[in-house]
Amino acid sequence: MSVSPQAATGKRKPNAEERRRELCDAAIDVLAEEGARGLTHRKVEQRAELPDGTTSSYFPTRSALLRAISERVAELDRAEFISVATDAADTDPPVSTLSLLAEMAMRSASGPALNRSRARYELSLHASRDPEVMGAFTDAIGQFIALSEEAVRLAQPGAALDRQLIEEQAYAVTTFINGVMLRLALGERTVDSAAHLGELLHALVAGIAVIRERAT
Amino acid sequence: MSVSPQAATGKRKPNAEERRRELCDAAIDVLAEEGARGLTHRKVEQRAELPDGTTSSYFPTRSALLRAISERVAELDRAEFISVATDAADTDPPVSTLSLLAEMAMRSASGPALNRSRARYELSLHASRDPEVMGAFTDAIGQFIALSEEAVRLAQPGAALDRQLIEEQAYAVTTFINGVMLRLALGERTVDSAAHLGELLHALVAGIAVIRERAT
Repeated sequence: MSVSPQAATGKRKPNAEERRRELCDAAIDVLAEEGARGLTHRKVEQRAELPDGTTSSYFPTRSALLRAISERVAELDRAEFISVATDAADTDPPVSTLSLLAEMAMRSASGPALNRSRARYELSLHASRDPEVMGAFTDAIGQFIALSEEAVRLAQPGAALDRQLIEEQAYAVTTFINGVMLRLALGERTVDSAAHLGELLHALVAGIAVIRERAT
Repeated sequence: MSVSPQAATGKRKPNAEERRRELCDAAIDVLAEEGARGLTHRKVEQRAELPDGTTSSYFPTRSALLRAISERVAELDRAEFISVATDAADTDPPVSTLSLLAEMAMRSASGPALNRSRARYELSLHASRDPEVMGAFTDAIGQFIALSEEAVRLAQPGAALDRQLIEEQAYAVTTFINGVMLRLALGERTVDSAAHLGELLHALVAGIAVIRERAT
């Protein structure tokens, strides 16, 4: 039985899935630091320290690259949410789902999540001009809305909640979080903790409940 | 006295100020439709139907062009706010300042304001990487915050308002409006009227007043 040179040196060839991930992670950093204008296939492989031409062999077009980055951002967002939820699972008293959303938003302001957050805005502006990239966002947006609806429902135990109220409150929550994350991505730090943001989200949900109750 | 060829044909040469405006307005459209990546000096003069080289003669560098566009966006925003306020001045019953802000946010979703709104996001992402362009935004952001503080103060007549509460409510209002305008710029239309957005803003302000009163 012959031994391949790779096996002999102990160096395993990364599989296609891993390469794609490496390229997408490098692309997120390039997008965040240099904007859509700075993103090129060549810069991505340089950032990932991979040979010339690697990016094109996985993502032949710019649109394919942007779509893959969007899917990777959504995948990392999901993993982050699971990690936030797991950290909170043992908290006593238990943390509300609205507070988990607040925690996730605040985490977007530092570490690798900050580059991901900046990249997300670059991608979303691009998505409004490219239906294929928009497709990659649709699922993530749907999940964010579903999670927000769940969060506002849990935040109002015992209240009479009709579907329309929940939808309006969840819309307001996602909108507010988007506004906060945009400010954080642009370097502004007025909201400085998840606890503070959580309070504002609860105030928003309660305020809408009051005006809707008054209207009936 | 000799007569210049221009005076003879009756064609007035536009002054530098007008040319700069024309170029900036064309650049706003290019930015909105093609993103930061699509923005070049050449595309701007083509869009403005001006001779090759015109853009460079007014804005020698890309940074100078981006700064000028940012200033033009802020100037148009101010003019829009004055127009909204003037339209509302004769309304009976009088419209709240918070509702004026809502009206302005909703106007950003259509007509020339939509391109300006999209351009604003492209510019703000760029600004986080370019201090010179950020400078052009600072004034506009300051005015927006001052106006929001005024709006939340007027929305709570007779209430005991400390500085910290006003600032927190105004921060929440600008954040929520940013979130709405971003969604509108990306083509989403869940909030469909200024009246609805105004209600949500009032609910947000009232909700924060309640949690802060409870805390004291």
